[in-house]
Amino acid sequence: MMNGNFTHIKPADIETESFRIIEKELENRKIRLRADQAPIIKRVIHTTADFEYADSLVFSENFMEKFRKVLDEKPLIVTDTNMALAGINKAALSKLGVEAVCFMAEKEIMAESKKLGVTRASLSIKKACEIERPIIFTVGNAPTALIELKEHMDRGYKPSFVIAVPVGFVNVVEAKELILESEVPYIVNRGRKGGSTVAAAIVNALLYMNGGR
Amino acid sequence: MMNGNFTHIKPADIETESFRIIEKELENRKIRLRADQAPIIKRVIHTTADFEYADSLVFSENFMEKFRKVLDEKPLIVTDTNMALAGINKAALSKLGVEAVCFMAEKEIMAESKKLGVTRASLSIKKACEIERPIIFTVGNAPTALIELKEHMDRGYKPSFVIAVPVGFVNVVEAKELILESEVPYIVNRGRKGGSTVAAAIVNALLYMNGGR
Repeated sequence: MMNGNFTHIKPADIETESFRIIEKELENRKIRLRADQAPIIKRVIHTTADFEYADSLVFSENFMEKFRKVLDEKPLIVTDTNMALAGINKAALSKLGVEAVCFMAEKEIMAESKKLGVTRASLSIKKACEIERPIIFTVGNAPTALIELKEHMDRGYKPSFVIAVPVGFVNVVEAKELILESEVPYIVNRGRKGGSTVAAAIVNALLYMNGGR
Repeated sequence: MMNGNFTHIKPADIETESFRIIEKELENRKIRLRADQAPIIKRVIHTTADFEYADSLVFSENFMEKFRKVLDEKPLIVTDTNMALAGINKAALSKLGVEAVCFMAEKEIMAESKKLGVTRASLSIKKACEIERPIIFTVGNAPTALIELKEHMDRGYKPSFVIAVPVGFVNVVEAKELILESEVPYIVNRGRKGGSTVAAAIVNALLYMNGGR
């Protein structure tokens, strides 16, 4: 590594040092996090360098207890982007016997989307809702995914867990409110912000907190 | 789509409407963007819902002219994460005859990283620098990738183009400065923020502005 202003540090220690800096800055901002939420919020800040997430991430009551219960049932994580899927730690998944998939680039989904003029995200959710297995929905991009999911919930479908952090300007805030008003166990980022990296960070934090590494 | 507060809109129109909202808010903030930078900055804001990028994205002189020249040489885009690679529009790549790769998860890179205690990002950059073809470096995650790249540049290597938007708390700000001080054509996001989604958004904007869709 070069001289100059760089911190000399082993690759393996970069994450630890990053979390130390994040903790210090949270302290400076007088932000105190709940123990069950802290590793998730800190990992999202680590992924975005954006401390706003300390205020905007919302957790349903007893979310961790409920997440653990789902984890015991060998659930399927369904993401709304291949980017989020790429960001989920594969070693952690395999250690916990959890599978993660994304249907967005599947040929049938693409063809049906074109034919019906419906977003691929909606069709992916529809497909996931038909799978008889506990599903952890992970939405980092498409508000239409949350709207579709809510419609299935209104007809009686029960998602096991919902991570709702789509980003954007059209129907994003409103779609997140649908989940916040529901009875489902959730982690939601209120407002416009979020994204695939945020979705993956939340999944990874949950996996790490439950024996994934 | 549901009733209530939702904007009723066709999926194909969501992006157009999002950009309209972004343009209006930029106007409200009295931010005027240069014509060659505007589509890139707006796409990054679209990806992050974070208007800070209007201030922090920095472009080298005549970056577009230089990018176009590289594009004519059928370059290879090398990303430092599979997430960024997943986010690059494959139809745009194929339309322009450009290839994109990520070496991070390759077995030899992983083995060598473990053996030498060097980040996979550094080793990926080293591998890219040995390829005799114009390379567009796209760094959304690892400052060590930029540090490694700068060392090759100091020994005479000339990258064709560098997109430097790693995110984080350790050596990120400093590593970006290395690129800002260099003679290479670049797009850099100054400060801590960035990420794989930002990297992919910049690549996509550049491709779209040059016939990629």
